[in-house]
Amino acid sequence: MTSEDKKKVEKLIERYKDEYFHHLCQLINFESTYGHELEAQLYLKKILEDLQMEIDIFEPDLDKLKEHSAYLSARQTFNGSPNLVGVWKGTGGGRSLLLNGHIDVVPAGDLKQWSQPPFMAINNGHSISGRGATDMKGGTISLLLALKVVQEMKVKLKGDVIFQSVIDEECGGAGTLAAILRGYQADAAVIPEPTKLKVFPLQQGSMWFRIKVTGRAAHGGTRYEGVSAIDKAIAVIEQLKKLETLRNERINHPLYQNIPIPIPINIGKMNGGDWPSSVPDEVMIEGRYGVSFDETMEEAKEEFERMLSSSMFMDSWFKDHPVSIEWFGARWMPGSITLEDPFLEQFKTSIKKISGKSARLEAAPWGTDAGLLSQVGDIPTVVYGPGTTELAHHPDEAIELEAIIEASKVFVDLILTWCEVE
Amino acid sequence: MTSEDKKKVEKLIERYKDEYFHHLCQLINFESTYGHELEAQLYLKKILEDLQMEIDIFEPDLDKLKEHSAYLSARQTFNGSPNLVGVWKGTGGGRSLLLNGHIDVVPAGDLKQWSQPPFMAINNGHSISGRGATDMKGGTISLLLALKVVQEMKVKLKGDVIFQSVIDEECGGAGTLAAILRGYQADAAVIPEPTKLKVFPLQQGSMWFRIKVTGRAAHGGTRYEGVSAIDKAIAVIEQLKKLETLRNERINHPLYQNIPIPIPINIGKMNGGDWPSSVPDEVMIEGRYGVSFDETMEEAKEEFERMLSSSMFMDSWFKDHPVSIEWFGARWMPGSITLEDPFLEQFKTSIKKISGKSARLEAAPWGTDAGLLSQVGDIPTVVYGPGTTELAHHPDEAIELEAIIEASKVFVDLILTWCEVE
Repeated sequence: MTSEDKKKVEKLIERYKDEYFHHLCQLINFESTYGHELEAQLYLKKILEDLQMEIDIFEPDLDKLKEHSAYLSARQTFNGSPNLVGVWKGTGGGRSLLLNGHIDVVPAGDLKQWSQPPFMAINNGHSISGRGATDMKGGTISLLLALKVVQEMKVKLKGDVIFQSVIDEECGGAGTLAAILRGYQADAAVIPEPTKLKVFPLQQGSMWFRIKVTGRAAHGGTRYEGVSAIDKAIAVIEQLKKLETLRNERINHPLYQNIPIPIPINIGKMNGGDWPSSVPDEVMIEGRYGVSFDETMEEAKEEFERMLSSSMFMDSWFKDHPVSIEWFGARWMPGSITLEDPFLEQFKTSIKKISGKSARLEAAPWGTDAGLLSQVGDIPTVVYGPGTTELAHHPDEAIELEAIIEASKVFVDLILTWCEVE
Repeated sequence: MTSEDKKKVEKLIERYKDEYFHHLCQLINFESTYGHELEAQLYLKKILEDLQMEIDIFEPDLDKLKEHSAYLSARQTFNGSPNLVGVWKGTGGGRSLLLNGHIDVVPAGDLKQWSQPPFMAINNGHSISGRGATDMKGGTISLLLALKVVQEMKVKLKGDVIFQSVIDEECGGAGTLAAILRGYQADAAVIPEPTKLKVFPLQQGSMWFRIKVTGRAAHGGTRYEGVSAIDKAIAVIEQLKKLETLRNERINHPLYQNIPIPIPINIGKMNGGDWPSSVPDEVMIEGRYGVSFDETMEEAKEEFERMLSSSMFMDSWFKDHPVSIEWFGARWMPGSITLEDPFLEQFKTSIKKISGKSARLEAAPWGTDAGLLSQVGDIPTVVYGPGTTELAHHPDEAIELEAIIEASKVFVDLILTWCEVE
């Protein structure tokens, strides 16, 4: 980018940023949790129309997905939950670039911990807050602002630019998988998940588990005659903590150096018992199991199942009543881009050009759709975005406006250099 | 009872037992859980009509109950949940006797742990099984069989006999309290809860608690950024186990000698979290708190609340986010009858006469409506019944037919001697 181009980009960002910050607030106001993505996608569709993209809005094909080994979802239907794709065809001869963001957000959680209604965005001039601001509607807006700037630069790109707003990232990536199966390919991809403007070349995988623990009911007043499924579930949780320690002690890749727990085991839900004065006879635990970049999903599963059936853990109760383990609802494949990949090199160059500083590389402590893009789509993928990692899924989730702007500038440079200007 | 009378009782029991065992099966087949008691009560009403009792069937008066300090219930209405009372007026000059049983049963729990449908009674010739067989429809049937025998003996009693089938014992005794407030009084009372034919002169109290534990949500992949409400709830449960140990170590009354945990703390329910890959920010624990015969409900509450706010327990998280404690839904007052009470003496004499053995006395490990009858109604009350304590609230709950018969004979003798024959 010449210094003249740089000025032009600055000027265009200044001109359009408030419009796109407004779009971000509007997007946050749609409560686009699992199964409720339609309105937000239709709003984005209007932005893509303004950007004069070729638009493809489609509900994932459940039958086709079901045939794929990477698919795992509780969905019975995708009715009303479409993917949205916008394409700028290049003039030819250039490398194509896929820009991928997810539209689904996690539920708000305990409203008392929010200092604002979660689905009523607030722009305080420095940041925008609300559920999804950081994970990852803010990232999506940074892509769209970059596209707006490139469009207004009136350049012609050689390579195609493909923008995707997908569903179901938060529960396993059915949206991105469906887009791959629909034929969307590219020479490289970027996902602006909340990385705090760091680059995450390693993608940690993860999957969801459901454990059923059995007890034996009894009157609470003679509770010693029963076996509490809650007590037994606590023993299971302790065993999972041991497993987490064991697995994380093995990881010594330098990119995980600053991550307290590279591949965590999160107990997300626990439900059991149906009467205060009865000994509970069943408890259900649900959680998320982190998978390392250097292991397969099958290896990770096998270790988990082995740990919960190990003789060290199995007291006489568990021997007669082993826990049942189900892998359900969501999984994210681990993935990685090699440190010598030309797209990663280009990405680092763009960051250096815009920020004046070297790119900071880290391994992602969570899974993203990058696993699917790299493993199933065979597309070298970098995760880099303006959101704040620690605020994802948090009350009072927010994103800094300056970070959105910086990411947009990096994306403008990346598009111009990767796809090439005619 | 003369030996001629004894023979007559034997003969009458033989004649009517199968009819009453059939009634028991029918009663079990009504799934008379909380709020669904009507059909079972109407069935019992027909039996009382056959016994030529004066019948009073009435829905508890919610407004009147609410004014009473012993009332605590989640009920918004008693529509369709009546109490049933049958009275035999005596000819005068005798002592009156109240026979009290509850019609409500706890839910069936995990059906897979039952070897039969819980609400389809089975009579195998030795025992009758199904939810409520032991707790306490079998006990109620033993009372009714005794009444049938006394009636067929064609004797005239001096004192009144009052039979009550009450609702809501399993959730705090609103039914018995309502019967007391309606004016039903007596010189003594018996409740045939499942004691395995032992006498329980001490009534352990209990109450239900609900504890809310707060965490801080975060993405499961950076779970170290949040605070798991499940982990914190496990710390609360550990603290409650310490409290249970502390409270039970204090109890050295000889009647509690054979009870492993005289006043248990039962964790009956635990629910928390709403997403597998989020750190849970709220957990709700519900349970039952045993109250000793020698403490007040207030003292017990105070110790519980103190334990969960003690500085030994409160880490920095709990200091900023103390748990909330609610006493809800159900409570049973502790109660006792003195070992010298003439009714208890009479009871022991009847047992000795029928079984040939001395009565076995124990303290009840659970609360019953006897707390209300003795404390609010001021009626000396003995708990003695044919059911098996350990099977109450259990899958495959059952009651032995021989035990029902033995209890019935004791009740016949008790009625004849306590109320006196003209």
